[in-house]
Amino acid sequence: MSVNGANPLRDAQDRRLPRIAGPSGLVIFGVTGDLSRKKLMPAVYDLANRGLLPPGFSLIGFARREWEHEDFATEVYEAVKQHSRTPFREEVWQQLVQGCRFVQGDFDDDAAFETLKATIEELDKAQGTGGNFAFYLSVPPKFFPKVVQQLKDHGLAQKDGSWRRAVIEKPFGHDLKSAEELNKVVHEVFPRDEVFRIDHYLGKETVQNILALRFANTMFEPIWNRSYVDHVQITMAEDIGIGGRAGYYDGIGAARDVIQNHLLQLLALTAMEEPGSFHPKALVAEKLKVLTAVQLPEDLGKHTVRGQYAAAWQGGEKVVGYLEEDGIDPKSKTDTYAAVRLEINNRRWAGVPFYLRTGKRLGRRVTEIAVVFKRAPYLPFESGATEELGQNALVIRVQPDEGVTVRFGSKVPGTSMEVRDVTMDFAYGESFTESSPEAYERLILDVLLGDANLFPRHQEVELSWNILDPIEEYWDKHGKPAQYPSGTWGPVEADEMLARDGRSWRRP
Amino acid sequence: MSVNGANPLRDAQDRRLPRIAGPSGLVIFGVTGDLSRKKLMPAVYDLANRGLLPPGFSLIGFARREWEHEDFATEVYEAVKQHSRTPFREEVWQQLVQGCRFVQGDFDDDAAFETLKATIEELDKAQGTGGNFAFYLSVPPKFFPKVVQQLKDHGLAQKDGSWRRAVIEKPFGHDLKSAEELNKVVHEVFPRDEVFRIDHYLGKETVQNILALRFANTMFEPIWNRSYVDHVQITMAEDIGIGGRAGYYDGIGAARDVIQNHLLQLLALTAMEEPGSFHPKALVAEKLKVLTAVQLPEDLGKHTVRGQYAAAWQGGEKVVGYLEEDGIDPKSKTDTYAAVRLEINNRRWAGVPFYLRTGKRLGRRVTEIAVVFKRAPYLPFESGATEELGQNALVIRVQPDEGVTVRFGSKVPGTSMEVRDVTMDFAYGESFTESSPEAYERLILDVLLGDANLFPRHQEVELSWNILDPIEEYWDKHGKPAQYPSGTWGPVEADEMLARDGRSWRRP
Repeated sequence: MSVNGANPLRDAQDRRLPRIAGPSGLVIFGVTGDLSRKKLMPAVYDLANRGLLPPGFSLIGFARREWEHEDFATEVYEAVKQHSRTPFREEVWQQLVQGCRFVQGDFDDDAAFETLKATIEELDKAQGTGGNFAFYLSVPPKFFPKVVQQLKDHGLAQKDGSWRRAVIEKPFGHDLKSAEELNKVVHEVFPRDEVFRIDHYLGKETVQNILALRFANTMFEPIWNRSYVDHVQITMAEDIGIGGRAGYYDGIGAARDVIQNHLLQLLALTAMEEPGSFHPKALVAEKLKVLTAVQLPEDLGKHTVRGQYAAAWQGGEKVVGYLEEDGIDPKSKTDTYAAVRLEINNRRWAGVPFYLRTGKRLGRRVTEIAVVFKRAPYLPFESGATEELGQNALVIRVQPDEGVTVRFGSKVPGTSMEVRDVTMDFAYGESFTESSPEAYERLILDVLLGDANLFPRHQEVELSWNILDPIEEYWDKHGKPAQYPSGTWGPVEADEMLARDGRSWRRP
Repeated sequence: MSVNGANPLRDAQDRRLPRIAGPSGLVIFGVTGDLSRKKLMPAVYDLANRGLLPPGFSLIGFARREWEHEDFATEVYEAVKQHSRTPFREEVWQQLVQGCRFVQGDFDDDAAFETLKATIEELDKAQGTGGNFAFYLSVPPKFFPKVVQQLKDHGLAQKDGSWRRAVIEKPFGHDLKSAEELNKVVHEVFPRDEVFRIDHYLGKETVQNILALRFANTMFEPIWNRSYVDHVQITMAEDIGIGGRAGYYDGIGAARDVIQNHLLQLLALTAMEEPGSFHPKALVAEKLKVLTAVQLPEDLGKHTVRGQYAAAWQGGEKVVGYLEEDGIDPKSKTDTYAAVRLEINNRRWAGVPFYLRTGKRLGRRVTEIAVVFKRAPYLPFESGATEELGQNALVIRVQPDEGVTVRFGSKVPGTSMEVRDVTMDFAYGESFTESSPEAYERLILDVLLGDANLFPRHQEVELSWNILDPIEEYWDKHGKPAQYPSGTWGPVEADEMLARDGRSWRRP
């Protein structure tokens, strides 16, 4: 496969050296799961199709299922056909399937890990993978310690002259203590720089664009501070319920599932200072700085809200409430909606609230960061002329309709000077012919390249739990989640929380 | 006719008190001309149709043509049918035609001015115009002194308890001296506050929006200064030649015809400080301040360029050069293209060049103000990542496609952090259902209301000539205009002028 400009799937305008993975392979634990089939396998194929994987790249599946190599290959083939972003090309597939292997076994099955070891050695010879392997733990967290220990015991976690990396999916614990324990277990086996925690939000183009927007431009950074910003709203809303994930979700809830990782990462990228470079150390240092500066509200009862979706008609369909979902304890206090007000104690942001909210069964699926600016300090207009003028806002639309919107005031056509809000839009889809790579494409490639920029470090994870823990403890001790009808924008308490600050939530 | 919210042509969302003219009438001198037929008569009808004129509003035409009132009424009817912006409504027309009168005569015909006086008195009784009349001088400037003198001699220029106003079309002289003389003549007859100079550009929505954009918003003013702005480009380009206007145009040229009035007014609105209010006195004070601060380049040969269009194929059509146009002296040195570099000597703008250019037979018809920002002071990106990144820019599109465009850098979708320019747009046409009033609607209504905000004051006119005179004198003494092929963006000398500053003209 061609890896130069002749590749039809590479951007012809991209004059940069292509970031192509060197000799390597990927081992997926939990390869029969949804994530693997819908995201990981298609991402591997898409990377191969774009010429970003080495010719001998190898993919090993590890699971209990009684499969032969061929069954696994068929499974990968089906997943690729169904879920890949880029067109199917037979020659790419033929090359990829050469390196597909399956290892059958339980996580406590020593023989299986010996087979895995032998398979890796075989691939090093047959495919030239050079001993470089990443182990992707797409398994429930309770199995993390066992798998990691097995990799160590069977001499798989390190190899002289090659690299071995661990890739971990969230949740990274369920509070600070469990996260510290998890980090300890993993770091005892893998060096810190070889541990990659997946927060797939960081793989999204629009999230990476926060850094481009802020630091490649002149226009935004001068107003990106407490002198001009009134507040920031970070929203991740889903319109679906918990689906079949009762077992995972109950006892975890919206705040742990989304705020601790995705929303605090978005906050960090939005609020951090400019790093000296995009070297991982420089970037992490700035994110840690800003997460350390996060200040919880004194009165957690007033400035946090949690809710549970209730039965209602949503989109022409009668949906059940959270407490009626299969597998949920009818007395569950798990939050399906969470909103918190944070502040950041530094020179740039002191006094500027960051409102974070997430929920299931809300009005629509949308993730966005809205930087809402103060009103102009003085309006030389006639009285009444600016009555319908809102606050300026810059909105980074993370998904869907990826892009940027700016809301500002413009004169209304007519004979008097009346000013009303209008918007200007930049849409990724309209401005670039390239379709955006899936987050997992980007992140798997980064793992193979050893580029840790888009992966939260263990200190970030711990700092995030440090922010969330007091809120969860408060909620544990006080009251229970407020009910909100499915399809609405959360409990009235959330509206009241902002109303007390003289503000209101955006309706995205 | 209804003047309240029930009027279907009024914006239902406009909660402000409507600006409706009180009892009044308009006298047009030169009523048989193009401007009158295409712009003034339709604008009067559109104002009536929108309910912004008083029920007894009267329109008097004055010209040499041997017309009866009925001929004039027919002429107005045809003009309205052909050129009005709003739909024709018989009941509006029937009311308007009640007040239509025609006065036949030469400008030195005393009897005609006595008839005009009698007609005005008749209308005061029949139509209730209350003695309030505006005299619109849509005539060549050489007739200004005569008409003004006649109005004075026949007691028409002032009336106790009523207002009388003079409306003057450009050119306001052809240099400082002639402008001062013209102002003297007019001010001897009409009080300064009753003289309205028409610069129809100031009646355009997008031009008025400059003030809304800058002063109703928070986002733009912090970066609207020398710390962030690299330079400003103000362009008014036409794709047509001089058409049948040889007699007017030759000896005047692009700089006098466009830069002296339109472009320097756009510069003033773009660069001025925030006024305390939009009261005419406050607004004029700021415009005068900034025009006074304008600094010509020391080396006029290097930082100004003039050109003449040459024969070429333009838009599939063979067009003649300026020197071959009917009625043009083949040795004419009149500029059909002019570009100048100005600076503004104040704290906000010191060192920031304002490049003004205008021309006929250019690539396309467009007027815009482009505020081009400096590059970010530091780019924490990898080398090569920002190679294709230009400078941020905010472009106010005055015409056509009225609106605002912001150009900024965004991450290119893909696996590396590469940044390229993208744009966001706000389009008047898409954001407002109201169609924009024609500039002349706005300006005629303002005259009737006595609102002088959008009319250049005599000091502004004189300051503008003060800026232009040294350039015209330099051009008179040195060389001649450079030729440029019709349909291109002006002479190569204009590109070289910016290239010497390390910049280039936008291709709008």
